[in-house]
Parts: sequence; C-alpha cells; structure tokens
Amino acid sequence: MSLQFGPDYVRAIAPYQGGKPISEVAREFGLDESRIVKLASNENPLGMPESAKQAMIAAMAETGRYPDANGFELKQAITEKYGVPQEWITLGNGSNDILELAAHAFVQPGHEVVYAQYSFAVYALATQAVGGKAVVVPAKDYGHDLAAMRAAITPDTRLVFLANPNNPTGTFLPAADIDAFLKSVPQHVVVVLDEAYNEYLAAEQQYDSIQWVRQYPNLLVSRTMSKAYGLAGLRVGFGIAQPGITDLLNRIRQPFNVNSLAQAAAVAALNDKEFLSRSAKLNADGYQQLTRAFEAMGLEYVPSFGNFVLVKVGNEDGAGARINLALLKRGIIVRPVGNYGLPQWLRVSIGLPEENEAFLAALRQVMAEA
Amino acid sequence: MSLQFGPDYVRAIAPYQGGKPISEVAREFGLDESRIVKLASNENPLGMPESAKQAMIAAMAETGRYPDANGFELKQAITEKYGVPQEWITLGNGSNDILELAAHAFVQPGHEVVYAQYSFAVYALATQAVGGKAVVVPAKDYGHDLAAMRAAITPDTRLVFLANPNNPTGTFLPAADIDAFLKSVPQHVVVVLDEAYNEYLAAEQQYDSIQWVRQYPNLLVSRTMSKAYGLAGLRVGFGIAQPGITDLLNRIRQPFNVNSLAQAAAVAALNDKEFLSRSAKLNADGYQQLTRAFEAMGLEYVPSFGNFVLVKVGNEDGAGARINLALLKRGIIVRPVGNYGLPQWLRVSIGLPEENEAFLAALRQVMAEA
Repeated sequence: MSLQFGPDYVRAIAPYQGGKPISEVAREFGLDESRIVKLASNENPLGMPESAKQAMIAAMAETGRYPDANGFELKQAITEKYGVPQEWITLGNGSNDILELAAHAFVQPGHEVVYAQYSFAVYALATQAVGGKAVVVPAKDYGHDLAAMRAAITPDTRLVFLANPNNPTGTFLPAADIDAFLKSVPQHVVVVLDEAYNEYLAAEQQYDSIQWVRQYPNLLVSRTMSKAYGLAGLRVGFGIAQPGITDLLNRIRQPFNVNSLAQAAAVAALNDKEFLSRSAKLNADGYQQLTRAFEAMGLEYVPSFGNFVLVKVGNEDGAGARINLALLKRGIIVRPVGNYGLPQWLRVSIGLPEENEAFLAALRQVMAEA
Repeated sequence: MSLQFGPDYVRAIAPYQGGKPISEVAREFGLDESRIVKLASNENPLGMPESAKQAMIAAMAETGRYPDANGFELKQAITEKYGVPQEWITLGNGSNDILELAAHAFVQPGHEVVYAQYSFAVYALATQAVGGKAVVVPAKDYGHDLAAMRAAITPDTRLVFLANPNNPTGTFLPAADIDAFLKSVPQHVVVVLDEAYNEYLAAEQQYDSIQWVRQYPNLLVSRTMSKAYGLAGLRVGFGIAQPGITDLLNRIRQPFNVNSLAQAAAVAALNDKEFLSRSAKLNADGYQQLTRAFEAMGLEYVPSFGNFVLVKVGNEDGAGARINLALLKRGIIVRPVGNYGLPQWLRVSIGLPEENEAFLAALRQVMAEA
C-alpha cells in the first residue's frame, strides 16, 4: 500500500487475539459445535444468571431508545454494593473500556506506562494506541515484582497497571504489598488496579480496595462483569476512583458505551448473590479437579487465584502451540500464550466438571502421543 | 482539587449531553412516565423491529460467552447488503465509536480536524479528546459550505468530518457536490462521511457512497443502526473504507466493542426491508405533519432530510431554552440546541402521528402564552 494514514505507533499495533469462538473452530476443523468444549476466555461456565436474562427481557421494550448515558440505575446498584458516590463511578464497555479510557485520559505520546511481564495483553495495546512508551517490568515467579515496578517509575511515568489476581498467570498480591506500593507511588502517577478476577478470591485473601480508593486520589480500581457475574457477551465493567480521575474518564467516555440491555442485566447480576457464590464454589472445585490431575500427570502449573490455570505442557518453545493444535482437533479450545512470552504453557479456563474432564482426557491422550 | 491528571485538552472537554431520558424528566417535573413524549434523540418511534427482538432472544443462551470479536455474521450481512469485502468493514459501538476511532487513529495533538459549524457535537468531542485542533468552518444556510471546507484544509489537516444529511440542521448535500469535494481533498487527509440519516433519504436524493469508497482510499463512510433501524439502545454502527483505513481502525478498536445481542439484532434488522421502508414512510408523513403545522404557526424551520426538524421558536437568544422548559413541564422532551450555537431554535425528532400532535398542541399553547 502506498498511502499510509496515522502515526507509526498505531500502524505497529497487532490487534488483540481473543479465544477462538466455537463456531470458528467448528468451521476450521469440521467439528460439531455442540461437542466442542471452550475453556479459552475465562468465561463463567454457568453462563449468564437467570436474573439477568429476565431483566433483559423486561428491558427489551425500550431498546429503540438510546441507553441512559449516565447509567443512573446501574451506578445506583454499584453505589449500594460498594458504598461510593455515583461521582466516583465510570461505566465501561467491559473493563477493557476502563483500561483504554485510562490510557487515553492520562498518557500522551512519549509518556511512560509501567506494567508487568506476563500481564493482560490490553495493557500493551492501550499503551501503544496512544503512543505511550511501555516499560515492561520482568515478572517474579510469574507474578508482579512490585519493588521492581516501583523502581521503574520515572518523572515521565503517567500510568501503572497492576492486576490482582493477574491474568494469564493467576498470581496474587497480598493486600499489604499493594498498599505499600500505592503509598510509595508519586501522586502524579495514576495506578490502575485491575481486579477482573476479584470475585474468585477465597475469604482469606479478600481485601478492601475501595478503602484504598478513599485514601489514594491517584488510584483507579477496575472491575468487570464478564467473569464471575457471567455477562461476558454483554460488555459491562466499571471503574471506581475519586472525582479527580473519574471526571476525566467521563469526559472522554463514549456517552452510550454500555447498552441498555447490558445495564439492565448488570443491575440484576450485581444483586444476585446466590449466583456469585455458586460461581465461586464451582470454580474452587474445578480448580482442585484440574490441579490434582496436573499433579498426577507431573505437569507444572502456576497456583492460580482466578478462574483459570496456567499449565506447562512441554519443554520446547513450540510445546504450547503444538498441544493446543492437537486439542483443537479434538474439539477442546484452550488459550495458547506464546504471545505473552509463555510458549511452553497453555492457559485453561475452569469449566463445568464434565468440561474439565473432557479437557483432561484429551490432554492425557495428546501428551501420551507426543 | 489540587491534583490534576491528564493533559489540559482532556480536562477542558464538556461531556456530550444527550436527550433527557424519560425517567429523568418524570423525576424532575413530577410527571407520569407513561404520558411523557420524547422527541429528543432522533430515535425511531417504532422502536426496535420485532425481527431483531426475536434474534436477541435466540442469542441469549450464549451471553455468558464473549462476543465474536470479528463479528463474522454481522460483517457477512453488511457484505451482502453493500457488496464490499469483510476487510473493508469496521464494527462500532454505534457510529459514535467509528467517529472516535477515526480521531484516535489519524489525529495526534496539534493536527487539524475540519468540520462545519452546526454539525454533530461528537466531531468536536472526538477532536478534543485527542488534542486535535478544531477548524470549524462557518455554515452556509445552516448546512456545510464545501468550498470553504476545502479551503480550510492545510498540510496539518488529518481529518474532515462531513455529515449528509447533517444533524442537527437536517441539511443535504447533493451527491455531485460531495464527489467534487472528495476529488479535491489531498490524499493524506481522511474524510469521514457520516451518513447516520441516510436511510431516510427519498429515492430522488439517494446516491451510492460505496462507489466513492472504491474510488477514494482516504474515504471512510460511517453508518449507524440507531436511527432508521431502531436499535439505538443496542449500540451498533459500522464504517466502510478501503483496507488502508480499515486495518488501522481495527487495530485500535476494542475487540468486543459490539455486544453479542447487538450483533444478533443488527443482522436481523439489516435484513428487515419491510421495517426500514415502514420507518421511512412514517417519517416522511410525520415530516409533512410537523412542517405544515410550523407553516401554519408562522414558524421558520430548516427543510430537513433526516428524522427531525430544526424549528425557530423565538427571536431572542433565550427562546430555545425558554420554550424547551415550558414543553418539559408539559411532558414533551425535545432538544434545545444552544450548545450548537442555535439558541433560538429547537430540534424535534419526528415521532408517531399522535406524538407529533401532542408536541404541536403543547407548542401552540406555550407559544400563545409567551
């Protein structure tokens, strides 16, 4: 192409690759869709809660109208759940939107953005899209090295992404470590604490990040409803921060970024405690099922605090891609993580017991053939 | 606030103000929601097509999964309707998303963006959000002055927004004038042709903008499904352009920007020709209803090619706000356009016959009292 539009840093972006959709794998490998098991995108294997479905059906009469740009009822539900004023809330088209809004609001070309090796791909994409300079801090035991991340902050840093638990590795940072980090960060640097997997934490790991929002004007906590709440297909996330940050995010937020049905479903899901605890229980059981099998097979894995496990399937760099392909041929979709610099590993989402078993059976076969 | 985050140009943004939601007006003025008439957001008074509703209900089983990031089926429907390859299509969370993606992809701080006075507020917002310099070209007869817009293009210009028909004035540019403009624009400048109201054009005004996309590698045609297709609450729009532009937009597009139900509904609506022609017919009739009444009342209006009419409700600068407030008290929501520099005018969306009549009756009362 002779004509080139846009800055080099945009042209250099490699778009995000999500988990392969079931329909695509069915087309590609000539498989029956109904027999495919997808454990590739950290979705809730229970699907959407029934309460959310009913709320959507009730809201359908009004979908010819624009959504409420202010998201009054959804913010009200968040307010009641987290005890923060509506002025502290930013609604997002998934938490992906919150992460991108932060990059757009706070980072100009040449500014530095600090995040960890082996952390969510969108941190890199959001940084690149605004011409920011990525400062990728080497991981420690597959998780964040907070001391090294603190040391990487310079006067040019505008944004830090922390994930807890971290995706795709599943590692966890104790609350005291995060608090000490937040205390040490210069006030001109905005810290995004991405808690997409927070709802899966066991009681003994839980901590109160909203208290930190009250304490640190430069903290933005990001949450999603795509995981434990089961609304991945609807795109709802939110950010909680003091008005100094929230005002700015709402200035550049697309006014109708969360659609009407998604808002209605999110209100219902936020109030559906039964679904949330059932999801967490199912996940804890599935984690045992998967990790016991990995141990029996002699496979290394990273202890995970999310709804997925990172497992090492070979010692050569092509192992992840090779085993992934063999699993795909058997109708099992997991996530290869070569693009994360983990070419010997696969990330598998925790599914229903029978889905986990189907994956494990296929994995045993594939590993035996290798 | 002592702490300030982000660049000045982001802090200076005044967020988009949509039409007031019915629920908000009911709360504010103590009115019964069911008796409120909303003609404020250029929505389709028929609501969402039944075909789209059925498609959404069928798609609900899968909303625990992420949407198809590539939008295969929706792009397929667009491909069939417009005869362009999938590689020429960018899906958006409403056409608002397409407009913003264009600004993010092509404009860096200091670059110039050209658009007309009295054109869609999002052009200004999208420009400001990326630190672009807005070059606002004075309107001619409330519409675009293409010669002046051409003359406003400099070596620093990266983007031009054209709207046809234009919102909020409803003016129309004949195809030959747009073609001549596109021919004259330097190739490094991307032109966004925003056709949000295209489906309301009568047969004698219709033209083939896709042919221009084939001809001009720097043209991006933007379409929405929020107007004639009746899906405002679902957020679906799309852009059509050659790969040089489309590639870039898709690099920075949020992978799951259009949710699963919106994709399903959009496929159904695109194929629902009966609904589209019914919507256009209803709109043409409502236009006659409104404009004849304006003529009878001696009110000036701008001849409109969209699903709304701009009408002058007084000669003093406060007229629009004053009449708007009086209408709100009577449960009629229209759009004041003082923020567009049109403080003597109101924009009224064309509704159902009885909605138009309720608006006209209230307007007659209010004008008589004034």
